Amino acid sequence: MNKGRFVVIEGLEGAGKTTAINTVYQWLNRQGHHVVQTREPGGTPLAEQIRTLVKSVQQEQVSPVTELLLMYAARAQLLHNVINPALQRGDWVLADRHDLSSRAYQGGGRQIPDEVLDPIRHLVLGDLRPDLTLYLDIDPALGLERARARGALDRIEQEQLAFFQRARAKYLAVAAVEPHIVVIDASQPLATVQQLLAGALERHFA
Amino acid sequence: MNKGRFVVIEGLEGAGKTTAINTVYQWLNRQGHHVVQTREPGGTPLAEQIRTLVKSVQQEQVSPVTELLLMYAARAQLLHNVINPALQRGDWVLADRHDLSSRAYQGGGRQIPDEVLDPIRHLVLGDLRPDLTLYLDIDPALGLERARARGALDRIEQEQLAFFQRARAKYLAVAAVEPHIVVIDASQPLATVQQLLAGALERHFA
Repeated sequence: MNKGRFVVIEGLEGAGKTTAINTVYQWLNRQGHHVVQTREPGGTPLAEQIRTLVKSVQQEQVSPVTELLLMYAARAQLLHNVINPALQRGDWVLADRHDLSSRAYQGGGRQIPDEVLDPIRHLVLGDLRPDLTLYLDIDPALGLERARARGALDRIEQEQLAFFQRARAKYLAVAAVEPHIVVIDASQPLATVQQLLAGALERHFA
Repeated sequence: MNKGRFVVIEGLEGAGKTTAINTVYQWLNRQGHHVVQTREPGGTPLAEQIRTLVKSVQQEQVSPVTELLLMYAARAQLLHNVINPALQRGDWVLADRHDLSSRAYQGGGRQIPDEVLDPIRHLVLGDLRPDLTLYLDIDPALGLERARARGALDRIEQEQLAFFQRARAKYLAVAAVEPHIVVIDASQPLATVQQLLAGALERHFA
């Protein structure tokens, strides 16, 4: 039985995840929680090496199934060595992306069907589900413009706009049926986004 | 529809796979086949990087599920970019390990049940099955002694003897029910092993 809580920040490139993570981190800290921060893919020495592989531009075409299995290999490692032990200790975990990213990018973007994803998700996640997922929703054209302004794009970020439109549609479709996901309109001014985040945290945890 | 044939060499460390591959390669060559050689995990630039990750001793414990997913990520990449195109062209593929290794090592050795393995195998392999698998059977104690004499052992080769005994038991159990697998007694003298290999190839392909 987990004693800690699991909070996930999700969204497309350029949605403002980093700022949101800082806001949420400070809110949790003020409540006196010990917070472990993670990022996916990555977050352990081996998972970070997998991150480098999966995000690098390769000399060869990367099969969608290879990409999917690398994402879940990294996730399994992070769950095994970081997230599950932290939650069992009673720490809070604040995650920069988690399983919903694979559903959006590999499921929506790469169009891998749920029948394929679900057995792998079940194998890797077991019964673990986030207590709260804050999904920062943004038009992919705007998000990619922001991400591009920040610097070079990785292999996945170099996909066509239609890929990110499918990913966004999947994010919204899952959010519509899973009550632990709160959609935040990330096109609002920063102060408004921060208020929306704080409001969601208050409602869930205060 | 594949025009080529798919021949796999399997066995524990120290069973004599490298010598067997050379013997089989020469036999196929004499028949006039164009032969593509592969090894697993590995065989493409990305799959070789995954091989390095999965076989290296890591600073952290590697979760059995992570190991399993890395093996199938590498396999998916090799199938997508090398094995399937070769078979479609009409080339023969001669593989140093393939799916049966995961069933033996991760299934038998790590005790991951078939219910977990089967959906991932189905996802990665589709309908592809080897035309012939030559399994070199050896007592793991003898095989490991030979492998140790060759040099440093990798992360998986450093497992306890019981791990390899479970892997061998799985190899034999699968071979007992899948007719495309021929068991070769690899404890015989080299000349005898080579005769057994040639005999199996004659029966299957001549």
